[in-house]
Parts: sequence; structure tokens; C-alpha cells
Amino acid sequence: MEQVLSSGSDVVFLATPHETSHNIVPRLLESGLRVVDLSGAFRLKDTAAYTKWYGFDHTARQALTEAVYGIPELDAPAIASARLVSNPGCYPTSVILALAPLLRAGWVDVSAGVIADSKSGSTGAGRKPSDKLHFPEVNENLRAYGLFHHRHLPEMLQELALSPKDFIFTPHLLPITRGILTTIYLHLSTLRNLQEIENLFHDFYAGSPLVRIYSAGTVPEILGVANTQYADIGFALDETTGRLILVSTIDNLGKGAAGQAVQNMNLMFGFPQETGLL
Amino acid sequence: MEQVLSSGSDVVFLATPHETSHNIVPRLLESGLRVVDLSGAFRLKDTAAYTKWYGFDHTARQALTEAVYGIPELDAPAIASARLVSNPGCYPTSVILALAPLLRAGWVDVSAGVIADSKSGSTGAGRKPSDKLHFPEVNENLRAYGLFHHRHLPEMLQELALSPKDFIFTPHLLPITRGILTTIYLHLSTLRNLQEIENLFHDFYAGSPLVRIYSAGTVPEILGVANTQYADIGFALDETTGRLILVSTIDNLGKGAAGQAVQNMNLMFGFPQETGLL
Amino acid sequence: MEQVLSSGSDVVFLATPHETSHNIVPRLLESGLRVVDLSGAFRLKDTAAYTKWYGFDHTARQALTEAVYGIPELDAPAIASARLVSNPGCYPTSVILALAPLLRAGWVDVSAGVIADSKSGSTGAGRKPSDKLHFPEVNENLRAYGLFHHRHLPEMLQELALSPKDFIFTPHLLPITRGILTTIYLHLSTLRNLQEIENLFHDFYAGSPLVRIYSAGTVPEILGVANTQYADIGFALDETTGRLILVSTIDNLGKGAAGQAVQNMNLMFGFPQETGLL
Amino acid sequence: MEQVLSSGSDVVFLATPHETSHNIVPRLLESGLRVVDLSGAFRLKDTAAYTKWYGFDHTARQALTEAVYGIPELDAPAIASARLVSNPGCYPTSVILALAPLLRAGWVDVSAGVIADSKSGSTGAGRKPSDKLHFPEVNENLRAYGLFHHRHLPEMLQELALSPKDFIFTPHLLPITRGILTTIYLHLSTLRNLQEIENLFHDFYAGSPLVRIYSAGTVPEILGVANTQYADIGFALDETTGRLILVSTIDNLGKGAAGQAVQNMNLMFGFPQETGLL
Repeated sequence: MEQVLSSGSDVVFLATPHETSHNIVPRLLESGLRVVDLSGAFRLKDTAAYTKWYGFDHTARQALTEAVYGIPELDAPAIASARLVSNPGCYPTSVILALAPLLRAGWVDVSAGVIADSKSGSTGAGRKPSDKLHFPEVNENLRAYGLFHHRHLPEMLQELALSPKDFIFTPHLLPITRGILTTIYLHLSTLRNLQEIENLFHDFYAGSPLVRIYSAGTVPEILGVANTQYADIGFALDETTGRLILVSTIDNLGKGAAGQAVQNMNLMFGFPQETGLL
Repeated sequence: MEQVLSSGSDVVFLATPHETSHNIVPRLLESGLRVVDLSGAFRLKDTAAYTKWYGFDHTARQALTEAVYGIPELDAPAIASARLVSNPGCYPTSVILALAPLLRAGWVDVSAGVIADSKSGSTGAGRKPSDKLHFPEVNENLRAYGLFHHRHLPEMLQELALSPKDFIFTPHLLPITRGILTTIYLHLSTLRNLQEIENLFHDFYAGSPLVRIYSAGTVPEILGVANTQYADIGFALDETTGRLILVSTIDNLGKGAAGQAVQNMNLMFGFPQETGLL
Repeated sequence: MEQVLSSGSDVVFLATPHETSHNIVPRLLESGLRVVDLSGAFRLKDTAAYTKWYGFDHTARQALTEAVYGIPELDAPAIASARLVSNPGCYPTSVILALAPLLRAGWVDVSAGVIADSKSGSTGAGRKPSDKLHFPEVNENLRAYGLFHHRHLPEMLQELALSPKDFIFTPHLLPITRGILTTIYLHLSTLRNLQEIENLFHDFYAGSPLVRIYSAGTVPEILGVANTQYADIGFALDETTGRLILVSTIDNLGKGAAGQAVQNMNLMFGFPQETGLL
Repeated sequence: MEQVLSSGSDVVFLATPHETSHNIVPRLLESGLRVVDLSGAFRLKDTAAYTKWYGFDHTARQALTEAVYGIPELDAPAIASARLVSNPGCYPTSVILALAPLLRAGWVDVSAGVIADSKSGSTGAGRKPSDKLHFPEVNENLRAYGLFHHRHLPEMLQELALSPKDFIFTPHLLPITRGILTTIYLHLSTLRNLQEIENLFHDFYAGSPLVRIYSAGTVPEILGVANTQYADIGFALDETTGRLILVSTIDNLGKGAAGQAVQNMNLMFGFPQETGLL
């Protein structure tokens, strides 16, 4: 820690346990360093939520207040000037990028419910060996977990301004190393055609080199983003009922973690956001 | 064919292409044989549907009329006396077994929509090599396909008596050999607690040795059913809103195909339904 | 333990750590129980070897003296009358079954060297999570380990009566759950044709329902034995030089462990050896 | 073809079928283009060998005469001035890089036999779907094939100046997408210690940025090279007998194919060989 503080660095990336980040970020900020924190310690604005979801009491309130939730496509100006960027979880990145354009445009009938059914590669669960990540327990398997109460749920609700009663998030563990595919189900508030949906996304992500929109009812698959920094989004629409399925894919270690951290740093220091990532 | 007709057999299992089954079943029945057909040729009662979903005109109307859709847990008496049992698709088996108890009890708010998000191992797609089933295209991947229009959709709607506007089925191709996991989302028509849900299923499947109900909010995973003949079903309930998630697993080659065919034959010939399967 | 001793059982299967088996087997035998031990505690006849390979001093000398190394195809009479059968390791089973017929017939030029290059599924390494068995460390990987000094080497040397200088065993960890494939390289002591090799194996394993010999230069693959109790063996011969390649496959949890334990028990109690296994 | 000839390009990469490369390379050379051919059409110097191994008669003798077998670490000057570079097969790259230093130094007792047991990911078999590459036939499997007569054998014999009677190459198909691991067995002609072996390799590959030598008896695994352009080599030595095991890993699509093609082009045009590859 002393080494970091005296290093003359401009920025620190923290890939530390949640509570460790919570404990050291204030001192890093005080010393004049800027921080991109990959833990969950500064993702939720409600301090009480940490006790419930992360098992520790959050006391770094000032740091929490100024922390910016770092999805570069959604909050570039705030990230650019932030001292502390809280790097999003991998699941939330795949969900938020797919839903934000529609929700911000008011095109979603939120009261009809929004469901995100996510499937993630095993690196999303970290490097620590455990029974549940032992090779023969993951291989040739699929497992749903954290139903109605996964730790990434509150940050999605917060960033998408959704009520818990209107949103379901279900993660599943895939027998692959890298990648997340999220299948999202929602109802449009007004009937639209597929072209309108695509146009909305193209406009929304016009300046976003790491988001790619699929056309004509095609949807992305995990192999298209594995080992890349892209988020890919595609659509299937039942035009007669306004039911829309979104399929969103990222590499959980790229756009879902380290890549997004670099993208955030790029914004913080005035570099083009994709620098070093394409 | 002549060999089969003169073989003195009691029953024929057909694992033939849809159109082949369509063409030969009438003659098999005429000759006095009983038939378990694993193709899709006799699953849909609406002949017009075959032109749309299977690409051929259905002319074997008499056989179609008498065909029984063969989920032993749901229609044992009809199967027992059937001359022609139409063995269900693998996806429909996983979906119908999970939904039937709730729908038949009237516990589902159908108008709020029911969504089945299924994930299947690659043997579900058959033995014929293709680009999409080439090892490097499946491995380390996940792919959604047939959104809003998979061929198994109409048999689910028919057997569950659901309207297309109230039901969504989305299949995904998993990088595993065997097994299906379906995650189902629905709203209860009346608030119930988890114990009531479990009791309903225990009662419904009391005489069904191949269906196993999970308790206390636990849900099954694919490894629990792979290489077995079981269908496993578990639940997660948000008691305050009545939103229910069902997780249903089968081996697509066992309970989802060959195992169920044997189970049907057992009923047809008066054997205990699990004979040779446990 | 007391429960076991007073249970009135005829036989005990031990799937305990090596040292635990070492400690409790004498007492089990004293009490009149017969034992099939799946640990390595009674596989090596040389007590000094335990200190080197298993890290404990072997003091159960009497039990060790009477222990029979349990490959049913090779020592049926001794197994039938044994009080203590030491169930072989998974790698040794795949190697010994392939080499024993040739070595016992004197058909191998041992001085030219025999090499066994084995590839095993990850369940061979046990249920305990570790860095090396963490899903992302095994998936999409292949790893050689224990070069020149794997713990299963001494039991192969002992059972095949080979000198360390004439035999190499190299295990590799495959990204699959079940199965071992061993590729063995040797020189025949006299030129023979493929038919002679096959005949030797057919004769040798004539009464062995769990060993299958491949014909005409075809070789087995892991999928042919996974989830079965079979050992499959095939050959490729360079007739002009007498160089022979053997390919041997087993399921490491079946014929390589639990299945073989049951097979040994069958012999011990006078049942046909394949009872309950086919 | 006409487009290529009139394009003003300096170099053409051919990833065409063997016979297509054979047919078009002469015309490309005539037109002044330089060629890196990834097919097998110009790898073997013996024209008769093509009839046997590739099933067509080789008539492009002049092109064949001037073709340089392109392993940059072994023949940089010849590659630099070549008009036609024949890019090696993936298996041969992994084998030749590991054996060349020892064979050229005369440290191998060739008459005692050299064995290369290779394991490759499935992309090595190409993009064309087939029964043998159908997902469920590769997944959870391992398969040995081409025993004593794989098409890559003659190019290894040629480049290593080995006699068929002294060398065995056995490929296996791994259930992974990318990567080759080759385990090589040989006898040293004179006893050496591990440090001497490592020094030989360090000296031999001193100017080779894409070859990495492992130390102290450690050996590489596939995950260390997958999605990279490196070839990694490690050793296990039985010092008392002079038996040496080499473990060599590459990405079959990188250093084993496209990466090496770029590396060859770099040499041909005077760029540092690793340009664009690290």
C-alpha cells in the first residue's frame, strides 16, 4: 500500500475483495490517486444494501457518494471527471447495455415485467477453487443459482431505475471458460417494428465503438465476443404483441471486467475509449 | 418394411424422419402393429400445422386422429389403450411436465405471460453433421435460436392449452452432449407459499416414479439427470409478488426421447411404467 | 467403525485415504470381514515404497503379505480366495490389461523400452477442489504431469515385472469428466502379423466378459467405454519393424475403480464376475 | 485469380486445398508474386510422395524445387529470399521445433527410436463438418488416428532427416478448440544433465522471440499458448538412463498455421519476424 501511494502513479486498478476495496479506497483518493475499483464496494448508492448483499457495513460514505458507476457508453462525462469509478459486474454490464436504450426512451411496458435470463462462463465466479467450480461439477452441466437474490441484482435495479417487483434476474453457470449470454424478455409499451428497435439502438450507441448491434432479427452468440472487448446485442420481435426478446453477449473478463476497466481509465485520462482494446 | 410387417412383433418404435413416419404409420397400424413414433409426424392435431412447421402436407388423418401424445405422467390411460403413441419432443417434455400441474390446477395467471427459456445439449439436434454442430462452433459457445418460431412450440401450446400470445419458448444450444434445463417464469393467479407449490407437485406426480420434485427452494441441475430417465423439477418463489420460477431438467435422449418411448411402451403393454428404466 | 464391525456384513469396500486404509484394514480382517480396498495402501509389496510414494511408513505387514492385487482378468483364483483385495489404480488398469498378454507370452522386446502415454479425465484426480482442478484450469487445456515419477508407476512395474529403466509412464489431464485412453509403444521380440496379435489377446481374454478386443487395426476411443465397465484394446502394427502401438481405454470410475471393485467382490463370493456390471 | 494477379500485391497467402495450391502456385510465381502456401502442396520434396499421401500427381516440379519449408526459427535466410514458402503443418511445427536442436547437435540416439505422441484441438481438422467432427463425437472423447500413416509424417521425417523406422508419430483428437501438445520420447546419445539440455535450447532459440523454453523440469500446457503465437518447450530427464521427455505446445491456428504464415512473410519482407504477432 505504501508502495502504491508513493509510486507517483496516476491511477490504481483494484481487483481486491469487496471489503478490502472498501477499506483502502478512501486513503487512495486522499493521496490524490484516481481509482478504478473492480470490486462491488462502490457500486450501490444505498449503504444499507452492503450489509445485506456483501456482508459488511459500509462506512466510506464520502467515497461512495462520489463514486461513478462505470459503464462508459452510458455515463462518459461523469466517468471522465471521476476520481473513483466503480467498475460494474459482468452480469449487469450485459443486462444494462441491452436495456438502457429502451428504458431511457420509455419504450418498455415496465409493469408487464422484465426478465433477464443470463448464462455465464465459469471465470465469472473467480479463481478460488470450490466444490461448485471443480471441473467435474461444471463440465457437462448447467446450473441456475441465486434465483431472486443474486448479488448483482441491486446494481441492475439501481442503474436501470427498476423496481424489484418488475424485474427478474436469473444467472446460470455454463460449462465454458469465458463469455456471458443474456436473454431478456419484455413488452414494448407501444407496438413498434424491428427496424425501429434497431434504429433506436444504432442511434443510442452511435459513438460507442465497443457495442455492436445485430440486424434483421439475428442475434449474437458467445463465440462472437469471447476474447474480445465487444458487447453484441440482437433482437427478436413479435410485432403483433409487442413482445421483444433481446440477446446480449459479452466476454465476462473483457467488457465484463478488465476491458471495461481500461475503457473507463481511457475516459478518465482523455484517451479514446477503445484505446488498447481493439 | 415387409420384414417388420411379417415379424410377428407387437410394437414398432419409429425413429424415422417426420415424413417417413407420416408415410408408413398407417400401413403399420393396418397390419395390427402398435406404434411408438419418435418423430413429429403425429404430435399436432391440426393437420394444417404440418405444412407450416414440418414442410409436408399431412394426409394420414385417421392415424392422426387416434394418435395419443405420449407423456405417461399426464395421459396414462389413453396411452395404455393407444395403437399409436406420438412420443413428445425433448423440449416439450421438459416444459410440459413443469407446467401441467400448475395450469391444470388453475394456479397460473396465464394472461401475465409464461416464458420457457430452455438450454439443451447438442444431441438434441440429431446425428447429422452440419456447420452449426461442428465441434468448434458449439464448444465454448452458447447460441439462442428459433426465437418465437421453434418447431416444438405448437406442441407445447396444444398440450398446455395455451395461446401463442401468452407463451414464449426460447431454445439455446449448450456445449454439452446430453441434457436439457428449462427455466420457466410465470405469475401465480393467487399468492401461495412454496410449500403449497411443492405439495401440488408431490400430489400430481405421486404415482410417477420418473419425476422427482425438489424441496425448499432448491433447483435441479443437468448433471442430476444426465444418463438417467428422470425429470427433475424445482421452484423459486417470490412470495410477495407471486412470481414463480420453475427449473426443469431431463436427459434429452432419456426422458426426452428413447426413455420416454420405452415408458410409453410399458404402459401400452401393461408393465409398470419404469420397467427397464431405473 | 464399530458399526461396520458389528454389522454382520460379509465384505467392506474402502474408498478411504491411503493411510486410513492402512490403519483400519488389519482390524477389519481380524474381525472376519473381507475387504476390497480402493486406496493405494496395499498395492505395493515393498513396504519401503510407501514411504517414498505415499508418504507414510507401512506397518501392516501381515495384511500386505496376504493382499491380492485385484485385476480379475489376471488373478481370478487368488482374488476368489482373498480376504483382502487391493483394487488397482485407474491408470495401471488401462496399462496392465493391454500389456499383460504380450509380456506373459514373451512377445515384447523389453530392453527396447515400453512407453505408456496415458490421458485421463479429471475425475481420476478425485473430488477435492484445487487450483489444478478448477474448471477454467482444466477446460480447453491438456497438461502432462508426474513425468518419470507418478505414484501409479511402481504398481505397474510390480505387476508387469518390468524394470524402471525399461518402462516410461506419462499421465496427462484431459478436459473431460470420465475415461482414460492409454497409447502404448513397444517393440515385438519377434516379427508377428496383426492377426497373431489379435489372436493372442482373444485367447488371453476368452473368459473375460469385460475386455473387448478391436480388430483389423482399429483402435478404441474414450466414448466407447465412458459410463461402461469395459476395457477396450486395439492395435496398430508396423509389420516390417515389429513396432506395435496399443490403444487401451477404460472408464476410470468404472473398470478403473468402482466397477472393478464390484467385479473383484463378485469373484470373492462366487458370482459371475460381470454380475451387476453389464 | 485474375483479380489477384492484377492487384499489385507483393505476396499471396494460400489457404486453398492441396491440389488447388498445386495448380495455381506456378502461375502466381510467374506473375512475380511471392507466395506463402498453407496447404501441403509444396511441403514434400519427393514428388512421388504426393500421389501416396495427398492423392494427386505433382507436376509443378520447378515450384517444388524452389519451395522453402517455412519454420522461421530453422531456416530464416532461405525464407527471407524465397519466392515460395511452404507453411508447415500444425503437428510438424510442434514436433520439429522440439526435436531440431537435439538432432542437429547430434545428442539423440536415433537408433533407439523417437516417438511423438501428439494431441490436437479440433480446429486442426478444418472447418468442414463431418461425422468425426460432429460435436457429440468429439466432446468428452479422445481418439487416436492415423497410426503409423498420418499425412504429416513424411514432412517431419524430411525436415528432421529421420528414417521411418526410427520415428513414430501418433496424433490424437482432443475435445478442445485450439492447441496442440506433443509429448516426445527419446534417448540421449550421451548422458547429459537437465541444465545442459536447457542451455542447448536457449542457445538454439536465442534469436527466436516466439519460442519459450521452460526451466527446471517444468513443462508447458496448452492454456499457456492458446490464442498466442508462441511455441513452448519443456523437458523431463531421467539422468541415469538418458531418457528424455519433451513437451511441446503451440496454438495450431497460430504458430501452427496463420501466425507462422505471417512470421514467414515478415522474414520475406525484411520485417522483424514477430511483427504483428506479439
